[in-house]
Amino acid sequence: MIKFQCDYMEGAHPEIMRRLNEINLDKNDGYGLDHYSAHAMQLIREACQCPKAEVRFLVGGTQTNAVVIDSMLRFNEGIIAPQTGHINVHEAGAIEACGHKVIPAKAVLGKIDLDALETYLETFTEELNAVGWEHYVVPRAIYVSMSTELGTLYSLTELTRLRDLCDRFNLYLYIDGARLGYALAAPACDVTLPDVARLADVFYIGGTKVGALFGEAVVVTNPAIQVTRGHIKGRGAMLAKGWLLGIQFETLFTDGLYFKIARNAVEQALKLRDVLIEKGYEIYLDSPTNQQFVVMPTERLATLAEQVGYDVIATLDAHNTVIRFCTSWATTDAQLAHLISCL
Amino acid sequence: MIKFQCDYMEGAHPEIMRRLNEINLDKNDGYGLDHYSAHAMQLIREACQCPKAEVRFLVGGTQTNAVVIDSMLRFNEGIIAPQTGHINVHEAGAIEACGHKVIPAKAVLGKIDLDALETYLETFTEELNAVGWEHYVVPRAIYVSMSTELGTLYSLTELTRLRDLCDRFNLYLYIDGARLGYALAAPACDVTLPDVARLADVFYIGGTKVGALFGEAVVVTNPAIQVTRGHIKGRGAMLAKGWLLGIQFETLFTDGLYFKIARNAVEQALKLRDVLIEKGYEIYLDSPTNQQFVVMPTERLATLAEQVGYDVIATLDAHNTVIRFCTSWATTDAQLAHLISCL
Amino acid sequence: MIKFQCDYMEGAHPEIMRRLNEINLDKNDGYGLDHYSAHAMQLIREACQCPKAEVRFLVGGTQTNAVVIDSMLRFNEGIIAPQTGHINVHEAGAIEACGHKVIPAKAVLGKIDLDALETYLETFTEELNAVGWEHYVVPRAIYVSMSTELGTLYSLTELTRLRDLCDRFNLYLYIDGARLGYALAAPACDVTLPDVARLADVFYIGGTKVGALFGEAVVVTNPAIQVTRGHIKGRGAMLAKGWLLGIQFETLFTDGLYFKIARNAVEQALKLRDVLIEKGYEIYLDSPTNQQFVVMPTERLATLAEQVGYDVIATLDAHNTVIRFCTSWATTDAQLAHLISCL
Amino acid sequence: MIKFQCDYMEGAHPEIMRRLNEINLDKNDGYGLDHYSAHAMQLIREACQCPKAEVRFLVGGTQTNAVVIDSMLRFNEGIIAPQTGHINVHEAGAIEACGHKVIPAKAVLGKIDLDALETYLETFTEELNAVGWEHYVVPRAIYVSMSTELGTLYSLTELTRLRDLCDRFNLYLYIDGARLGYALAAPACDVTLPDVARLADVFYIGGTKVGALFGEAVVVTNPAIQVTRGHIKGRGAMLAKGWLLGIQFETLFTDGLYFKIARNAVEQALKLRDVLIEKGYEIYLDSPTNQQFVVMPTERLATLAEQVGYDVIATLDAHNTVIRFCTSWATTDAQLAHLISCL
Repeated sequence: MIKFQCDYMEGAHPEIMRRLNEINLDKNDGYGLDHYSAHAMQLIREACQCPKAEVRFLVGGTQTNAVVIDSMLRFNEGIIAPQTGHINVHEAGAIEACGHKVIPAKAVLGKIDLDALETYLETFTEELNAVGWEHYVVPRAIYVSMSTELGTLYSLTELTRLRDLCDRFNLYLYIDGARLGYALAAPACDVTLPDVARLADVFYIGGTKVGALFGEAVVVTNPAIQVTRGHIKGRGAMLAKGWLLGIQFETLFTDGLYFKIARNAVEQALKLRDVLIEKGYEIYLDSPTNQQFVVMPTERLATLAEQVGYDVIATLDAHNTVIRFCTSWATTDAQLAHLISCL
Repeated sequence: MIKFQCDYMEGAHPEIMRRLNEINLDKNDGYGLDHYSAHAMQLIREACQCPKAEVRFLVGGTQTNAVVIDSMLRFNEGIIAPQTGHINVHEAGAIEACGHKVIPAKAVLGKIDLDALETYLETFTEELNAVGWEHYVVPRAIYVSMSTELGTLYSLTELTRLRDLCDRFNLYLYIDGARLGYALAAPACDVTLPDVARLADVFYIGGTKVGALFGEAVVVTNPAIQVTRGHIKGRGAMLAKGWLLGIQFETLFTDGLYFKIARNAVEQALKLRDVLIEKGYEIYLDSPTNQQFVVMPTERLATLAEQVGYDVIATLDAHNTVIRFCTSWATTDAQLAHLISCL
Repeated sequence: MIKFQCDYMEGAHPEIMRRLNEINLDKNDGYGLDHYSAHAMQLIREACQCPKAEVRFLVGGTQTNAVVIDSMLRFNEGIIAPQTGHINVHEAGAIEACGHKVIPAKAVLGKIDLDALETYLETFTEELNAVGWEHYVVPRAIYVSMSTELGTLYSLTELTRLRDLCDRFNLYLYIDGARLGYALAAPACDVTLPDVARLADVFYIGGTKVGALFGEAVVVTNPAIQVTRGHIKGRGAMLAKGWLLGIQFETLFTDGLYFKIARNAVEQALKLRDVLIEKGYEIYLDSPTNQQFVVMPTERLATLAEQVGYDVIATLDAHNTVIRFCTSWATTDAQLAHLISCL
Repeated sequence: MIKFQCDYMEGAHPEIMRRLNEINLDKNDGYGLDHYSAHAMQLIREACQCPKAEVRFLVGGTQTNAVVIDSMLRFNEGIIAPQTGHINVHEAGAIEACGHKVIPAKAVLGKIDLDALETYLETFTEELNAVGWEHYVVPRAIYVSMSTELGTLYSLTELTRLRDLCDRFNLYLYIDGARLGYALAAPACDVTLPDVARLADVFYIGGTKVGALFGEAVVVTNPAIQVTRGHIKGRGAMLAKGWLLGIQFETLFTDGLYFKIARNAVEQALKLRDVLIEKGYEIYLDSPTNQQFVVMPTERLATLAEQVGYDVIATLDAHNTVIRFCTSWATTDAQLAHLISCL
């Protein structure tokens, strides 16, 4: 039985393991003050074409979202997120635990509905101007993920429009890049890493799902946002052996490894999509990245589960269930062939 | 110009003022440990037919909601509220500031949609059972207000169904009674105070909007919920001169004053509604209580505003605006006649 | 039995009650947007000689401390307070509930020990500079109360030195003025209200203990500190009928009423002190304000408690107990005579 | 230059790296639901002789302290810690950020002063009983670390007395075991792991400093304390690839590896201590574990710093500085010989 439930089911890319083994018994300064971290920060700034960006390495996605969002918001300020956004549904209230409201916005296929968002911002701003903003949670930031929880992508036009809305309504734009590698590696993606860095105020480059053992690299391009080391420490998000993060991101951002390995996941996923269509399955939604959603007769699930791992997404109707297959940087041709043979 | 914007625009009922004046220079023990408070608690327990209920007096509605809800919920537990519920839209994030998520539910005319709620609870519970509840905010309580922010009422059948849903899904039922007096005083209301006490796990009886200078009486009927004095104090919600709350509620719950004065507000509001209909205005929604919502040609608003105070609720279309008139325990026939003369 | 336990045992000064009665049935805008509040703010700015100060009215001391301190501090910043400071010992963790550490400092007779404070700040700053500040709670403000919880006073020289320390170490100075009236009214006090306004970044003028039914007036003189209305609302500290606060402070700051009535409390207390000394009681500490601390043989307490109310402060030794008598703006000659007759 | 600043300067024990490499490309279930974690939990329960204990794996010490303490305390409850305890001085306010007060207690050489603690608990309990507990932060737990931040140890007699105090005053006992391995490995230690499990209500076994890349194993022996997976997730402390924690602790608790490698650190440290004494250095405090504190002439520090890494602890006087050398599981004879040659 081969697992395709998610994209964080393997350890790290072999090159990362090689480096970790290599320096294992060296002595390094703690808390991210080592030279690997410094170098990795520099490599990321270069890849982002943002020489002045502040880079921070954290361990996982939920803690990253909590620390970054808590850094952006003051009292009675909230962050708008698509209804299906990770912070709204899948992080056990981590943002609220820091005292902030997640303001849900209409989402279509995992993406925030930009027309609905614009109308909401116009209407709500007018209302606040009329009756006084002090009774409300004031939107101060927008959260989107790229790729989204449903594998979909924002186009450059859409991200630019989001940026314009942020400028117009005085909002920060925060992009959760847990799967940023898989987004950027998609043939359908017309956005580049420098685009993301230019359009967002702060974002993170996901390592956990894209080649690292663990680790997310926060990139702060707007100096008005301070993600301080004290904040990271006080939220329990500062790794003692910080060089473990540094050396992983140094490896990922040397010779474009991050982008290279992300491509594999997307290629395998698109091959899978083609096969699914070919075999007559109904594709639940058209995902151009490493997550593929397919409608499966519910009665087939028990047998399938003995052969491959998948994630149940939703009950579609009396006879059908939506399931998800994820590929990753580590998915091999043989693994995919096995999966296809079970369909 | 006479103000009808809200129901907390006057001071206290004259009988309350008389009592406050009477004991003004007496010396009382602080922090609610006085005999007026003890007596008021007893009167409220009797009115609720709940001899074992715990009663707490707080100053205002937002702090009451925050303290009560924070007392009910543990980490990563949330409270379901209708989309239009006060805690979801009008309290500047007070619940989130205590670390808890308000989970918005579909609302119709200010009331939680019970069919949609049932479906949501069934679906979500099934999902959590399947994938593990640890990634989610787990619903632990339901918040409704009575009367609602739009003046509407839950029937006894509806409240009973809410109670059943709470029992079935292991949820507390919390009723925000900022306007409970105006609800119970409505001819259309088939719910009594003992019904509320029997069906809710905790609720509050609003004083601020119904005759008091300020003050809300929390009634906890489920001993599993502990609204401790330490919690009230630590949230800055314990009044030093607590007897000011005690004597107000003692007065309100002596000889049924609370219910008597609430009736005046509803009677004046219903008279207003009849006149509005008679004069051909479009009633925006059918409110059986002290808040009346009417569609007004936008071009008339400027003139109207010079004569009476009203609250703008929403822009309906290019030519019409929804506005609200509130009556209160203090609204006189003369004031209403003036309002009617302006319509 | 006449109670002398505390200084908030009576209602409001009769002139305040007169005004509250007078306007009781008038209709006013809510949430402090009324003209009484605006006028009271203006009167307070004038009394402080701070034409640009921001004034906010809150209901009680604990909520005021929580909101103000939460407004001053960011993540992993703390506030230094004397060990015996109200926020450190008597507010049920209200500051920590907002996420902030109270850093206890050595106190002598209720006052922060300035030499010890200076040494601490020098040493700690050096330490943080050496090892990085991110592992620590960084002091960002100093809290003192005036008069203190033990009735003592800071001299102008001492407050000026505190200010200098704040300037040198980049700290805000916050003065809790729950009993500010009784401090300023003391013959031994060489500090004026304009001095307080000039030396502190933010402070509050206590109403609850000095003539009001309830209410504290926050005065923010440093524009870097924003005590926003949204923050006040979201902490449940915004009174719906805000004009009740406005008219009380308007009354207190008209014709110097606040200072006049405060003087009565201090005069009665100093008379009491003289009598206690005369009668051979050991004064526990030399308080120049309205709280008097005296050593009482423990065996006398039971009898005394039947005649007058007092507060037990501490067990001194096997045979003696320290107790406190408080006078207030409302203490009459007859009440004092009764107390003296019991000693 | 060889670094002796701390005990987390190397990667993981080679056996751990071997296992991580071995399973690197296997696919595992996420979030700690893998079989390595289950097995590691079982091994730890056995080592603790606590078959019913709940075991949780977290990434680092600060987040572990925050989650565990937040799980133990309710509103306005606090945790007593020695003045020098890690949570009181070195975690950037992580406990306060969860809303809880750390109540500092007198410490001697890093250990809580048990006589002073008993007196405090007796006095404070009496005070709360007299005046009502609602104005105070109520102590609900005691925090100690083993070994302490200064390398010292609690004896079995002392831990038993702490337990008795906890029973008497209804407190939980929480032991921070970031360096538990180094404590248990000390010849001077008369406490065993089963003793710790029997006496504490909850504690953690530190991996980060004792052989792991990262990771702490929380052991909850008192079922009244629920450290839920939802709480861990919502505080951003749940590692996606949880098996990385599981396999590390499985390795450490197979064939007693944890205890074996801890012994090396203590042996090297005690050798160092003997040499320091022999060479005539003043030992700052007598540490029986892997941290050694020595008084060094300040003028020697610059030269020394070019040869070995050390941690500056405090300025002792005009001419002397206290510094710390740490050994670890990875310290070799050659490294120690180098250090000794520099002294």
